[in-house]
Amino acid sequence: MTLTLNLNADLGESYGAWSMGNDAAMLALVQSASLACGFHGGDPLTARKTLALARAARVSVGAHPSYPDLLGFGRREMAIPPDELEALLLYQIGALATLAASEGVTLTHVKPHGALYNRAWRDPVTARAIVRAVATASRALAGSGHGIPWQDARALILLAPPHSALAAAGHDAALPVAHEIFADRAYTADGTLVPRSEPGAVLHDPDAVLRHVQTMLEAGGIVTATGEVLPAPIHSICVHGDTPEAVAIAQALAATLQEQGVALAPLPALFDPVRTPFAS
Amino acid sequence: MTLTLNLNADLGESYGAWSMGNDAAMLALVQSASLACGFHGGDPLTARKTLALARAARVSVGAHPSYPDLLGFGRREMAIPPDELEALLLYQIGALATLAASEGVTLTHVKPHGALYNRAWRDPVTARAIVRAVATASRALAGSGHGIPWQDARALILLAPPHSALAAAGHDAALPVAHEIFADRAYTADGTLVPRSEPGAVLHDPDAVLRHVQTMLEAGGIVTATGEVLPAPIHSICVHGDTPEAVAIAQALAATLQEQGVALAPLPALFDPVRTPFAS
Amino acid sequence: MTLTLNLNADLGESYGAWSMGNDAAMLALVQSASLACGFHGGDPLTARKTLALARAARVSVGAHPSYPDLLGFGRREMAIPPDELEALLLYQIGALATLAASEGVTLTHVKPHGALYNRAWRDPVTARAIVRAVATASRALAGSGHGIPWQDARALILLAPPHSALAAAGHDAALPVAHEIFADRAYTADGTLVPRSEPGAVLHDPDAVLRHVQTMLEAGGIVTATGEVLPAPIHSICVHGDTPEAVAIAQALAATLQEQGVALAPLPALFDPVRTPFAS
Amino acid sequence: MTLTLNLNADLGESYGAWSMGNDAAMLALVQSASLACGFHGGDPLTARKTLALARAARVSVGAHPSYPDLLGFGRREMAIPPDELEALLLYQIGALATLAASEGVTLTHVKPHGALYNRAWRDPVTARAIVRAVATASRALAGSGHGIPWQDARALILLAPPHSALAAAGHDAALPVAHEIFADRAYTADGTLVPRSEPGAVLHDPDAVLRHVQTMLEAGGIVTATGEVLPAPIHSICVHGDTPEAVAIAQALAATLQEQGVALAPLPALFDPVRTPFAS
Repeated sequence: MTLTLNLNADLGESYGAWSMGNDAAMLALVQSASLACGFHGGDPLTARKTLALARAARVSVGAHPSYPDLLGFGRREMAIPPDELEALLLYQIGALATLAASEGVTLTHVKPHGALYNRAWRDPVTARAIVRAVATASRALAGSGHGIPWQDARALILLAPPHSALAAAGHDAALPVAHEIFADRAYTADGTLVPRSEPGAVLHDPDAVLRHVQTMLEAGGIVTATGEVLPAPIHSICVHGDTPEAVAIAQALAATLQEQGVALAPLPALFDPVRTPFAS
Repeated sequence: MTLTLNLNADLGESYGAWSMGNDAAMLALVQSASLACGFHGGDPLTARKTLALARAARVSVGAHPSYPDLLGFGRREMAIPPDELEALLLYQIGALATLAASEGVTLTHVKPHGALYNRAWRDPVTARAIVRAVATASRALAGSGHGIPWQDARALILLAPPHSALAAAGHDAALPVAHEIFADRAYTADGTLVPRSEPGAVLHDPDAVLRHVQTMLEAGGIVTATGEVLPAPIHSICVHGDTPEAVAIAQALAATLQEQGVALAPLPALFDPVRTPFAS
Repeated sequence: MTLTLNLNADLGESYGAWSMGNDAAMLALVQSASLACGFHGGDPLTARKTLALARAARVSVGAHPSYPDLLGFGRREMAIPPDELEALLLYQIGALATLAASEGVTLTHVKPHGALYNRAWRDPVTARAIVRAVATASRALAGSGHGIPWQDARALILLAPPHSALAAAGHDAALPVAHEIFADRAYTADGTLVPRSEPGAVLHDPDAVLRHVQTMLEAGGIVTATGEVLPAPIHSICVHGDTPEAVAIAQALAATLQEQGVALAPLPALFDPVRTPFAS
Repeated sequence: MTLTLNLNADLGESYGAWSMGNDAAMLALVQSASLACGFHGGDPLTARKTLALARAARVSVGAHPSYPDLLGFGRREMAIPPDELEALLLYQIGALATLAASEGVTLTHVKPHGALYNRAWRDPVTARAIVRAVATASRALAGSGHGIPWQDARALILLAPPHSALAAAGHDAALPVAHEIFADRAYTADGTLVPRSEPGAVLHDPDAVLRHVQTMLEAGGIVTATGEVLPAPIHSICVHGDTPEAVAIAQALAATLQEQGVALAPLPALFDPVRTPFAS
């Protein structure tokens, strides 16, 4: 039986006159993209253009909503009450979903960005606010031109780290949850990322990155820096395109997986092989 | 036969800690509200709360998108290219539509705000960009939980001044166009508003406001400051709630119209009497 | 000997079309005002107008810089690195100082706003970043049209709570530190405010507010909810103007203090009785 | 006698996580830099870092204030009333001046950015609002640590196009006005730039750029596309660093001028040869 996996990247993070990342290169490598929604990057015109590119590349698209912090690129934690956070996320998901529909693209997942993602990794209150927004947006968008007409309650997939408060909240709410791992980051004993300030936190050598991924796929879960295994299904691998080296690593990863017979597919195909996220 | 009219107001324009207008009073008077979408006011939490209030008051809701100018409250013209403007409007309409759906409300109209409205009154390029956004959003939202399941192509109603480039562009695109008049403003010979800087531009006396409306309804069109009639169907009267005097004038207007046997109804009822903009 | 005290309020917090607070009433009651600098409220035109009003009222003016968070009114904590925070504060202080100079006003103090103030109360890293910005701004502005030509190193006064990390950092850097108390708030055993969520945290009864202030002035320090005294010089009392009740309490407080022979003076007069913060 | 000229560039236009331009390369080529002030780019930390680099490179620094439009990079016209515009400019100049002082740099000029610059080229009302802000900021900053202690009224130099409403307003207000020309742009008969949409508007060939500059320097004024001369002193040449080609052209221009014996100097040296814009 063929192993099916997904490669995902965070794209569409340019803003106005400022460019970020190499979206064109990444769209040729990944099967799913999480697009900035205007709060940390990704103004409406950038989003619309990136949606058109994603459609052309047959890459499935999710919303990548953030704290409202352009200056900090959504990378710093903000103490936002859960009901306001839920409204901020609904706003961003709805805005991107409508832009997507205008380009014949159906949003199929949501992945929170930056400090919000990190906070939801460990904080159940934040995780539940995100899940409420995703579930509510799923119902709001279901059946529409940008609805999600597939079997499991027409829900947006929640892209989240395994062994996180975010994944747990998603499962509790019966959302489809896709687990993603980070190919170039070491993991602590509780399944979170080793902070960048510590030695060995980030893998820079392409071979080490490939071995790290291979080890986790074979172990069937997160493999920590001390070699322990935290079992969990792995659906997706997050790759970066912010430097030429990052693009090269992503290319090597995609090539190696395909050589090994791994099928690479858009996220919704992992939950329903026959559906398509694109208008015919 | 009963004359059916609509009273509309621009609401939900508070932002974060700052409050604006008397939304509660206005929701008891009008049948339709245009809600700020975050670009000139109306943060996501404010929008969501106002949507819940509108639903409770059985007031139909439209999007009130703006130039991106919080500091200027959307009141100053910005030279934004048409394709970017279209994306900015889709973003705002989609965001509000999704928040609306989360509160069981279906958006049924769009009315551009402030300087964008004024520019679209006379500028066909801007008017067509707005109309493209409304038509595209209509298709995107159609049939969804926040879609618009009624007869005329499931389209969002465009709320626009009669004899404007905006109304003309809406008609050209086969959008349902609702004409609104301003009860307290004098009109020039070409159907635009007399600038506020000129004497007599704004009517402050409640009786004068009522007579102005009465004259236009009887004439079946805009009546200019010099007494000429520019014939046009009148669907709606825009009222304000930014001062106690404005609320009092709106109350007098509503009471007088009802005494005269005019039926006051939400905007979609003027285009399809049997539909409802609310989830059951 | 006459006791000299200061009443201070946070003013100039309107933004664009949105109005906040009753600045006119408060400027007649306080001797010092902390003005918003554009990051949580207080756009440049609002700031300039408020500076002219403050000058006319002979109220000394300080900068009230904030986290960059208009949507949250600076009330939610943001994880901003110290060097960036220092730059954000220098930017705000410098902007307000120049607007002040254009109105013949010399900035004489700095008081951080909202969540930044609260964090600096207990966090030495944040406190030191603020103090670096105040000391650097003092040197930058010294001797200029908006410089601070008085005896103690021409420094901006730091307005801070007694027994706080912020006051300690200010003293360490040899800044002039003015201690302020909150007339309507109960204090914990360590001198911080009882959280608003707890019973008795906020005093609403005007007589209770007056007694609370009286008790602290007589005790010569913070008096906690359990009656303990944390000795500290008290220079200023922070009053609010966001509701009619708040204005009434501030009026009662000012009147009572003056009946008791307390002299009320601008902040710089407490550090140098002969100087004036206004251009001649 | 040696001809003394200045090369200037617009720098510090990165924002948060987004990078723009090649500031390091340009600081090695130009003698003066206009730094973004946060309204179209140039957040406070970016500004402070760029100020430190400019000081190390002995490049004189001016403020490059803008309309408040991050999304549009200050490139689209906004209808802002003159008194608000003046306050917005004072705010930006004062903020940058204080950051500059913290790095031992004295601001010595102001050049409006983007759409504001273009509007002030032809619109006297906008030009006069800018000049009022520059003159007021000059007085506010004069004599301070970041003041401008030189002979001609201690004023900030206004960097403006010759034959513009901006230069005229600067002269009327007795500001020192430095004229800048654009090396790679063709000029119309009235001394404005040929719109980019027209053929020949932008010179791409390095040799053509050098000849264009040479022609204008020899003619002693603007040379239009049809060969007419509009006489005016030329103080500075604006160069760009947004592409590798632009940097190469700037390098060729600097090298050629120096080969021809032209002295390249910071802007203030053109008005007062003995002063320095840097703290000792």
